[in-house]
Amino acid sequence: MTALHYGENFLEEALHSYFSSRKGKRVVLTDSLVQELYANPLAEQLGATLITIPRGEKAKAQEIAFMVLQKLFELGVDKDTTLLAMGGGSTTDLGGFVASICLRGIPLVLIPTTLLACVDAAIGSKTAIDTPFGKNLIGSFYPPQAIFIDIHLLKTLPHKEWLNGLAEVLKMGLIHDPLLCDSFEKEDLSWIRKAIEGKREIVKQDPQDQSIRRILNFGHTVAHALEAISHYELSHGEAVALGCLVESYLSLRLGYLSQADFSRIETLYSLFPKKLPQAYTRTAFLQALQRDKKNKGGAVRFVLIDRIGHALAFEGAYVRPVSLEELTPVLDWMEEKYV
Amino acid sequence: MTALHYGENFLEEALHSYFSSRKGKRVVLTDSLVQELYANPLAEQLGATLITIPRGEKAKAQEIAFMVLQKLFELGVDKDTTLLAMGGGSTTDLGGFVASICLRGIPLVLIPTTLLACVDAAIGSKTAIDTPFGKNLIGSFYPPQAIFIDIHLLKTLPHKEWLNGLAEVLKMGLIHDPLLCDSFEKEDLSWIRKAIEGKREIVKQDPQDQSIRRILNFGHTVAHALEAISHYELSHGEAVALGCLVESYLSLRLGYLSQADFSRIETLYSLFPKKLPQAYTRTAFLQALQRDKKNKGGAVRFVLIDRIGHALAFEGAYVRPVSLEELTPVLDWMEEKYV
Repeated sequence: MTALHYGENFLEEALHSYFSSRKGKRVVLTDSLVQELYANPLAEQLGATLITIPRGEKAKAQEIAFMVLQKLFELGVDKDTTLLAMGGGSTTDLGGFVASICLRGIPLVLIPTTLLACVDAAIGSKTAIDTPFGKNLIGSFYPPQAIFIDIHLLKTLPHKEWLNGLAEVLKMGLIHDPLLCDSFEKEDLSWIRKAIEGKREIVKQDPQDQSIRRILNFGHTVAHALEAISHYELSHGEAVALGCLVESYLSLRLGYLSQADFSRIETLYSLFPKKLPQAYTRTAFLQALQRDKKNKGGAVRFVLIDRIGHALAFEGAYVRPVSLEELTPVLDWMEEKYV
Repeated sequence: MTALHYGENFLEEALHSYFSSRKGKRVVLTDSLVQELYANPLAEQLGATLITIPRGEKAKAQEIAFMVLQKLFELGVDKDTTLLAMGGGSTTDLGGFVASICLRGIPLVLIPTTLLACVDAAIGSKTAIDTPFGKNLIGSFYPPQAIFIDIHLLKTLPHKEWLNGLAEVLKMGLIHDPLLCDSFEKEDLSWIRKAIEGKREIVKQDPQDQSIRRILNFGHTVAHALEAISHYELSHGEAVALGCLVESYLSLRLGYLSQADFSRIETLYSLFPKKLPQAYTRTAFLQALQRDKKNKGGAVRFVLIDRIGHALAFEGAYVRPVSLEELTPVLDWMEEKYV
């Protein structure tokens, strides 16, 4: 399994030690902001060439992937060349994809610099670029050789970026690790590491996303539908926070989750702005739900929880079809609360 | 490991049985000639959509890969959609690459229709497209779910195409399977299957091409250099035949191979036209050798054999650096014989 190096203010030393026994060229892939904040001195220290890509989701494009590949070939990339992808989830997704198809795979090191990339995008070996037909439709499973997570780098994150990651962290607490929620409530900061380890444990059980890994989709059935009808104006964190609340309420309504646990979940998400997008209508929302990737045979399928820290297995399916009749009171509640 | 289905005139029935227990859409990827000869009725039988790509190496381009991906998304590809790549090595290489990155991997079935694709391109899970910087520089390792080899389809192959495959078949005999050469001399046709099994055995020992798989490069150090200086006017089969002869002679000169075995090898390759390309000069050839992917630290490295059916291990490196001094008499011999 990929080596995970975790610490605070340790990156420079850790990379120095990592590369002391490794030959070959080094290339740092990053965006212009991360380059200015962190990547310039690091590339200099490593004797690495820098390749700069656009910030955010627009980096995850076919044209950018092939621009990066072309630069790698111009630099004389070989099987010993390490690509270090340093940045948010877009950079680690794109960098991973490029590394996976360059010479059928070159060494990859991920250095996530957002909370979301640390706890989610950089963990689990999924790489991806977007297409006009949808996000993440082209990609690969490609484990990096190492991941370096330096939480010192997270200190420059804007609040909104922080919330994007936090929504996934709390989701991990709900589906997998009750202690994560405890430590979040006590503000002892070990929740970051708990979220990372949680995802690694789940991915290890199901690397190819065929069974238990589906529980990572908790909150995301609703979140993806809301993001789609908002034309991605709703941030991913806000959408996932809303999604986790709604799918927790669904778990309560279907008789799996206790009222006490649900109330605690409402408190956990109190930091987040929670508002349905302007363009929300029930019809548009139900249509968007129909396009969910987990669906089979027409029914919308949800991951559900029966207590804080545990998603239901449903005999290995990890999802349960939910009828429109079961969904209706949940949508009533959601609309009343969040419009 | 990938299931290999081998037979003669069995394809229609075998595919029918294969898909009787498999759900999902089917898409057949093929070129216009193979479509006309074989793929049209097959696609109809399977209820499959056809995607047609250019014939030959020009199919292995970034633009073609993304054209095929776009068509797959337009067709509503999902994780249960099987891509059947039917054709020569370009079609199986491109189809494999597309299947490997579409939705992070969709089911892939290979139906090679050239001898070269049957014994080489379709075996071993390597996929690839070309770049302006070189052939096969972008790709992946992606095992198909099944390979169907129907030697009946080979009957329409032009002689030149047949020789392209035969050069790789005989190479497999030289590096791995003395019985293959026996059966080739006896014309009992079991040599096709022996060549396929030989490659499967070697790939199984070293799927990621890090040790013994290198012996598949026998003959190719010289062949790639000759192809490059001929600007790919020399066919791959002719280049590999010449390469195997020259590298066998090198094995003889360095004291590893007997004169008797070398003479038998000359007879084995008697079918092939053997002529150095017009543009050949020793300087151009030596420069082209320097660009070989196996090189390390400046020295050109060769796979060598010590008898028919056995490549030397060189303590797990499977290649031996050869000095200019050692190479010179071999080039003298090659130029005298084949200019």
